Amino acid sequence: MAAPQRSRDRELATLLAPDILALLEESPGDIVVETEGLHPKDLADVAEMLPREKLGEFLKVLGASRAADVVEYLDEELRVELLEEMSPAQAAALVSEMTPDDRADILEELEEETADEILGDLPDAARQETERLLQYEPDTAGGLMTTEFVSVAEGLSVQDALVTVRAAARSGRKEAMHAIYVIDERGALVGVLSLRELVAAADDARVADIAWTEVVKVPATADRAEVARITSEYDLVAIPVVDAFDRIIGVITVDDVIDAIVEEQTEDAQKQGAVQPLEVPYFQAGFWNVARKRVGWLVFLFIGEMFTGTAMRHYEDTLAAVLTLSVFIPLIISSGGNSGSQSASLITRALAVGDVDTTDAVRILLRELGQGLVLGGCLGLLGFARAIMWGTAPDVAAVVALTLVSVVVVGAVVGAMLPLGFRRLNVDPAIASSPFVASLVDVTGLVVYFSLARALLRVA
Amino acid sequence: MAAPQRSRDRELATLLAPDILALLEESPGDIVVETEGLHPKDLADVAEMLPREKLGEFLKVLGASRAADVVEYLDEELRVELLEEMSPAQAAALVSEMTPDDRADILEELEEETADEILGDLPDAARQETERLLQYEPDTAGGLMTTEFVSVAEGLSVQDALVTVRAAARSGRKEAMHAIYVIDERGALVGVLSLRELVAAADDARVADIAWTEVVKVPATADRAEVARITSEYDLVAIPVVDAFDRIIGVITVDDVIDAIVEEQTEDAQKQGAVQPLEVPYFQAGFWNVARKRVGWLVFLFIGEMFTGTAMRHYEDTLAAVLTLSVFIPLIISSGGNSGSQSASLITRALAVGDVDTTDAVRILLRELGQGLVLGGCLGLLGFARAIMWGTAPDVAAVVALTLVSVVVVGAVVGAMLPLGFRRLNVDPAIASSPFVASLVDVTGLVVYFSLARALLRVA
Repeated sequence: MAAPQRSRDRELATLLAPDILALLEESPGDIVVETEGLHPKDLADVAEMLPREKLGEFLKVLGASRAADVVEYLDEELRVELLEEMSPAQAAALVSEMTPDDRADILEELEEETADEILGDLPDAARQETERLLQYEPDTAGGLMTTEFVSVAEGLSVQDALVTVRAAARSGRKEAMHAIYVIDERGALVGVLSLRELVAAADDARVADIAWTEVVKVPATADRAEVARITSEYDLVAIPVVDAFDRIIGVITVDDVIDAIVEEQTEDAQKQGAVQPLEVPYFQAGFWNVARKRVGWLVFLFIGEMFTGTAMRHYEDTLAAVLTLSVFIPLIISSGGNSGSQSASLITRALAVGDVDTTDAVRILLRELGQGLVLGGCLGLLGFARAIMWGTAPDVAAVVALTLVSVVVVGAVVGAMLPLGFRRLNVDPAIASSPFVASLVDVTGLVVYFSLARALLRVA
Repeated sequence: MAAPQRSRDRELATLLAPDILALLEESPGDIVVETEGLHPKDLADVAEMLPREKLGEFLKVLGASRAADVVEYLDEELRVELLEEMSPAQAAALVSEMTPDDRADILEELEEETADEILGDLPDAARQETERLLQYEPDTAGGLMTTEFVSVAEGLSVQDALVTVRAAARSGRKEAMHAIYVIDERGALVGVLSLRELVAAADDARVADIAWTEVVKVPATADRAEVARITSEYDLVAIPVVDAFDRIIGVITVDDVIDAIVEEQTEDAQKQGAVQPLEVPYFQAGFWNVARKRVGWLVFLFIGEMFTGTAMRHYEDTLAAVLTLSVFIPLIISSGGNSGSQSASLITRALAVGDVDTTDAVRILLRELGQGLVLGGCLGLLGFARAIMWGTAPDVAAVVALTLVSVVVVGAVVGAMLPLGFRRLNVDPAIASSPFVASLVDVTGLVVYFSLARALLRVA
């Protein structure tokens, strides 16, 4: 994305931090009132700027409920440190103020032992709820959902439903209330309406009459990419999660969907650069951790690329006979790689957003074949012209030009088909990275080049 | 993203389309009732499956308001076709049922002349509102916002505010009502609260007392990436847009933010594959349009890569003296490119999500230098071993190993610094694509290789 400026939103925190620090020394009691109107994210920024040893004190002054909000927005690293320093009872008091989904997410960041201790100190209901959420994989709908939502029986009048909703809103539960779910007597999800629609309805209407009956929902096992896509396609602010009996068991709110989209994208971007996903921000990932995430792919690609050495050795005699051929080797293999990168990135992204799927393979193949011919034709002409200008013999220049057309076509086709193949095998197509495609195309490029040279130049 | 299945959500539409078609023939009047509970996105999927000539009839049967909802979810291509076939008056009747932001977005897709005709046929208020929105660049907060939102005066009681809100909700305006904005007598934005908070509050409380006073907001000129980042960091469902006097002029809802995030990411993914952003789905972009978006970068990279030819020509004597050197050329230049790709993708993404910024340049440089040495060391050892196994002379193998270390270091550093440099120049860092970094590193790799060879092997 273009030009976000991290500095800009820290401005407020930079201004506030010295005042908060002074208040902590002189009259900590005033901090609650002074910071009342602030978004917890801004308070978290302030917290991160305080001297490390003041942090615990600051959170204590805020009170458990507000502190819980702030802790949710802290840097993961700092949050883990903080919770591990606390006694399990203190930590339990803090996390019990969080929404169930955030609580589960945060416990998942901790060492298992610490998390278990904190869980043990939670009130029974909260513990059971959290344990239930922890059973789901973090990348699934179950892992993203919260268990706090508002449902009303289909038979209620608008007036009665509003009483239920106002009571729920006052209960102190924190989760947003973007949608009200309508359930039948078996608990099955039969409708949905927005709080706004409920507020706008006539008091004596029945809830069942004003609700939407075709509810967009996901099973708990749905993958987060699917949740993201459905939320985005249907413009939802919350999506209900159902069990096998169509009973609503949770709700995923749009803020968690956005986080999932951004994370998924980061992983894809890293995979496309041939890095295993880091899972944490760049500087938070330890040096050796990053090296480990890079070395696997780098060595794998290096070993693949060794076949270029095998090919080159095979054609050493041809090269010795026409040494000029060597001049064009880097140009040829990079052109194949570049055209392959283009196709791979177009198709990988089109798959990710659902513009194409594996059933479109033939149509994509034909299109990329065409693209390769057109683009390869351009580069072939350019390459021919440049070779002649360098004083290369016309027959060698012709070999270079024909090879360029071929490698660009091969690159485009391989780059486009590879992501489709991975999707078909249920492997994430994003691993068809530019370097991966390039290394596949490189050997082909060399073989085509020297085969053409042998055939057209009549050398060994 | 992994494995979304386009087929899955078309299932409902596939089931419904034949029934709708039959109803259109036999009793079109029943369609409204039959499709009442459906999400407009599903109806749009049905619409896309109907024979093209039935589409207008289907929309007419639905009625202007419902048809407007459905048209918003149609494929852009089909929507443009549809609106251009209608008379300006018909089109105006349809788009006047849309929210102001969607209306502006859709008019922007049309030929300017058609859009002007439709604008001319809109009621005065809607026309002026749309013209105002059309003044903003589509990629800015102003271009994303809608002008329909609910604001209440700060002096109101909760009870009176609820009356205002219920009236607004009943007025038939469609925009979601995720947040209620509190304004002072000059119209300046002084607070925000959720509908849920309003509903939960005691009837006699004052709105000013329960509202959040530090409102997260953006100026109309803010870039869409910034809007996305703020929305995601603060977990908002709507973000208010203010003018220079802090007066609220519009609101951006989270569904438009998600669309912006997905679009921005598609553009970044395409740039990183060295393709100019397509701006439309893969198959909707015409063949020659795609070729044009690819050929520019491909030719630019090709011309850059010609310097490898210049370098090779320069070292032809060295190569003639030790022909074995040629065997390792593809391996060396690809390794530099791969390490560069990794660093470029890590840093480009870290910049996009705000994990790093240009002020971190030195820290990043040192870290990537370290990464390059570690990773280059691994590849150098592997390369040395392989060269010896191929029977290469140990001194040549040493040259290969040293070159590998150097190119991996150069790749890592160039790959990391390039996105930072572009950001500094206010150019989108995503253009530091893998092919771009690779082509910069290729020439360096060759020069290092042959210089080391000349120095260590004592050849010409």
